[in-house]
Amino acid sequence: MRFTISAAKPEDCKDIERMIMELAVYENMPDQVKISHKELERDGFGPNPFYHCLVAEVPEEHKSKDGNTTVGYVIFFYTYSTWKGRTVYMEDLYVMPEFRGNGIGKALLGAVAKLIPHGEQKENRPHFETWCFFKVRFLLRLHGRILIRVLS
Amino acid sequence: MRFTISAAKPEDCKDIERMIMELAVYENMPDQVKISHKELERDGFGPNPFYHCLVAEVPEEHKSKDGNTTVGYVIFFYTYSTWKGRTVYMEDLYVMPEFRGNGIGKALLGAVAKLIPHGEQKENRPHFETWCFFKVRFLLRLHGRILIRVLS
Repeated sequence: MRFTISAAKPEDCKDIERMIMELAVYENMPDQVKISHKELERDGFGPNPFYHCLVAEVPEEHKSKDGNTTVGYVIFFYTYSTWKGRTVYMEDLYVMPEFRGNGIGKALLGAVAKLIPHGEQKENRPHFETWCFFKVRFLLRLHGRILIRVLS
Repeated sequence: MRFTISAAKPEDCKDIERMIMELAVYENMPDQVKISHKELERDGFGPNPFYHCLVAEVPEEHKSKDGNTTVGYVIFFYTYSTWKGRTVYMEDLYVMPEFRGNGIGKALLGAVAKLIPHGEQKENRPHFETWCFFKVRFLLRLHGRILIRVLS
């Protein structure tokens, strides 16, 4: 299945809100979602965004049974560890169930990896953390370095 | 005991490195500290710092037995929750053992709270998170709102 990965735009936030809720429902915690597309629009864009987001889109002919063409997203931001320094934290990685198995999740994560600064100096490479690997099972290499190893 | 709280400057980073290591030793994990004052100087200042830091200083006459006058620090930064939105994450809060019991930790945390944006609209107030409350036992109120409640 063809799909594209691109930086989210403000007009994607209603779709992102929808998928955040789908993920929360999957986790049996829909009541925990306190924000809407309005906060996402306010906080994710401009010169100092609070988060970065990429979205996955499929062509119109592959739209979901509910008519959606935006079918996955990843949200990440920088944090800091006083032990390890610069850290990229991946908050959410989600692909709609009917679109799984097409490599969309891996492509989203690979696109994040390409956005992470890297250099010859090992200390310039940020550490990577996440909580959300419950559905991700692969090994991601970038620039000869193992960035993410998930074997279980 | 008199003390002052102020925003860390690059020249404070050797003291911050020393105290990060003291905290890691306290946690029995000194081998985990992979960064030094050089990374702290590079990452904490300029237009888009990776972290924010406040330091506590005592007058020369109250210097530590090792001659230090910078005796505590707090490091925090913004993260983002797809459930709760803007979040302030407090990475470290530390006061040297010989200076505890003087209200320095509470003053550091209060100074962080004053730096956090707040408004009439509840949704503009960021959520607050940390892992490091093992030695903090108090309730912090700000603008009539309970910001931190630690009872155990």
